[in-house]
Amino acid sequence: MAPSDVTPGTQPGDQPQPGNQPQLADLPLREELRGQHAYGAPQLTVANQLNTNENPYAPAEVIMTELADKVRHLDPSLNRYPDRDATQLRADLAAYVSRQTGVEVGPGQVWAANGSNEVLQQLLQAFGGPGRRAMGFTPSYSMHPILCAGTQTEFLSVARREDEDFQLDVAAALAEMERARPDIVFVTTPNNPTGNVTPLDDLRQIIQAAAGIVIVDEAYAEFTDFPSACTLLAEFPTKLVVSRTMSKAFDFAGGRLGYFVASPAFVEAVMLVRLPYHLSSLTQTAARVALRHSAETLKTVDILRGERDRVLSELRRLGYRTIQSHANFIFFGRFQDSPAVWQEFLDRQVLIRDVGVPGWLRASVGLPAENDHFIRAAGELRRTVLTEQ
Amino acid sequence: MAPSDVTPGTQPGDQPQPGNQPQLADLPLREELRGQHAYGAPQLTVANQLNTNENPYAPAEVIMTELADKVRHLDPSLNRYPDRDATQLRADLAAYVSRQTGVEVGPGQVWAANGSNEVLQQLLQAFGGPGRRAMGFTPSYSMHPILCAGTQTEFLSVARREDEDFQLDVAAALAEMERARPDIVFVTTPNNPTGNVTPLDDLRQIIQAAAGIVIVDEAYAEFTDFPSACTLLAEFPTKLVVSRTMSKAFDFAGGRLGYFVASPAFVEAVMLVRLPYHLSSLTQTAARVALRHSAETLKTVDILRGERDRVLSELRRLGYRTIQSHANFIFFGRFQDSPAVWQEFLDRQVLIRDVGVPGWLRASVGLPAENDHFIRAAGELRRTVLTEQ
Repeated sequence: MAPSDVTPGTQPGDQPQPGNQPQLADLPLREELRGQHAYGAPQLTVANQLNTNENPYAPAEVIMTELADKVRHLDPSLNRYPDRDATQLRADLAAYVSRQTGVEVGPGQVWAANGSNEVLQQLLQAFGGPGRRAMGFTPSYSMHPILCAGTQTEFLSVARREDEDFQLDVAAALAEMERARPDIVFVTTPNNPTGNVTPLDDLRQIIQAAAGIVIVDEAYAEFTDFPSACTLLAEFPTKLVVSRTMSKAFDFAGGRLGYFVASPAFVEAVMLVRLPYHLSSLTQTAARVALRHSAETLKTVDILRGERDRVLSELRRLGYRTIQSHANFIFFGRFQDSPAVWQEFLDRQVLIRDVGVPGWLRASVGLPAENDHFIRAAGELRRTVLTEQ
Repeated sequence: MAPSDVTPGTQPGDQPQPGNQPQLADLPLREELRGQHAYGAPQLTVANQLNTNENPYAPAEVIMTELADKVRHLDPSLNRYPDRDATQLRADLAAYVSRQTGVEVGPGQVWAANGSNEVLQQLLQAFGGPGRRAMGFTPSYSMHPILCAGTQTEFLSVARREDEDFQLDVAAALAEMERARPDIVFVTTPNNPTGNVTPLDDLRQIIQAAAGIVIVDEAYAEFTDFPSACTLLAEFPTKLVVSRTMSKAFDFAGGRLGYFVASPAFVEAVMLVRLPYHLSSLTQTAARVALRHSAETLKTVDILRGERDRVLSELRRLGYRTIQSHANFIFFGRFQDSPAVWQEFLDRQVLIRDVGVPGWLRASVGLPAENDHFIRAAGELRRTVLTEQ
């Protein structure tokens, strides 16, 4: 098209008036993105950060020292592209998963990317996408539908039973799976934001019934003693993918490392869609250092589990309704107006998370002092914010 | 679907025989991915690595020392999610681009991701995708069509003029753009793998004619004195995006940092599709250190430009056909059988790149000794491998 053919105001690519910065609406954005807002919890600086479920303990000194030393000696290679297949890191992850789950896992069964979001996006590109559909049991990890939208995968939501502590309703799940035949089924366990676990027997029923693949999202696996879905991998080698992350139990949310465990064929599949050299040398190096010291880091997970149980019982004592949590956060309520209660906590220097489930809020388990502060705020607020249970 | 409904052999999600690992073909992969192979240059260990266009100089000691020190002191934050919007890094990139291009660029005009591949993927998710089409002028960066495929964007290829040193054929480009009205047009300049530049006047014509957006891929910008397409940003605020990378001129291919420069509205657009926390604290920290020492690093670019001109004239002296390169690699030929010639170089411990253009091969400019080795091999091979020009 020659420039003279452009009728001002009718083409999305038109230039605005000189001197004016164009607005988002002036760009030829995909239709389904128009009017949308970027995802993400508010990044506010507040004394008690209990909103994004990180491990609140700073990494051990030995980790930081070793990491700095390894980085210092990256100079013969930092100017070169990294190992595209992250071979050593995947071997270390396989060894860690084998130890942590008790299921023998080989390096060829592990895939890693920049956070589990990228892992899940790659799986959606390979097994979802236009004309395909995914199913999830909500409320659950809010990125699942967003990642589906980003890959044009239709997302079908099946509600958990709020009246039964948000347990996954297996009968409803099986019925909806039979009806809709999703290509991908997401099960988050322990579930975010509710904290409860889907037992292996329920998982087995869901995987058996699946026409496509099942992604079990175990981001919080280290906070529970329930067995990992990895124990089902041998039974369902063409269907089951277990995704995990170093952002929660590990002190490594800033390092961005997610991974999955599945048959090697699943690794071959995502290699068809992964961006080449997606994992930097820094990330590969740092994650390996963190894994080498996993025993030390996971000691803090034990402390957090104890704190979780303490916060849970305190909230109950105060009259809040809570869900028994197997993760490092607590889902509690019920409130007439959760956004207003979220603000009340913030006014008391406690940043928690409104995940958009009416009547409920989520608080991460923090350091003991942070948890004390949170419990104190919850105590101050109970009279005014609690709705009838 | 209940398990008893599964007829073995008819469902892609079927379980294989017990004891057998499933093959990729046993998984319910998207149809268009079946039979595909993962992208990527062979990662071989060879004495002279001239295949992926990195800066061959190891990073300066001051960079590595400072980087190690910064990483050592990440411990109050490595367990926390990184700054989701990479604010400080984008300010540093804006300052660098302003210096390097002479065009004043603000932090709000810059977006960064894990390599320019991720930057381009995000742009395709926002402005391309199913039902939309992109156009490129080939041979060019081979990831453009692959990224299009990964986002279900149709890719239209318009051939460069091999008879005129692979220059972009502006008349053909305008005609094809008028006919096909692509949503996205890619122009790589300096172009990979041919090394030549598309002058600003040609770029201006293409952008004026574009119905959608134009992505000028300037991965090799630091290797040429031609002005950056950033000089056209004020003229085309709703159409032009300039993508760049720290993988080439900077000693930072292992750090994985790509970015784009455009109107702030483009940054808003990719924020709708980017994965939250896509850039790790390590990456943000390391890229900032590298940028702080850009003057020192770019001294090596001057050396590489001199070496490039030396290798070019040596190849010409030996009778090879070459394209005048404005990047850190050389496209040379012509060969009857480029894969065989690629192997001949490899047999002489020189790893170069066969990008799939019949008759031509691409060699990165390396350290002086590597270039000597390459020229020696080219001298040995000239009698047997050169086809009639």
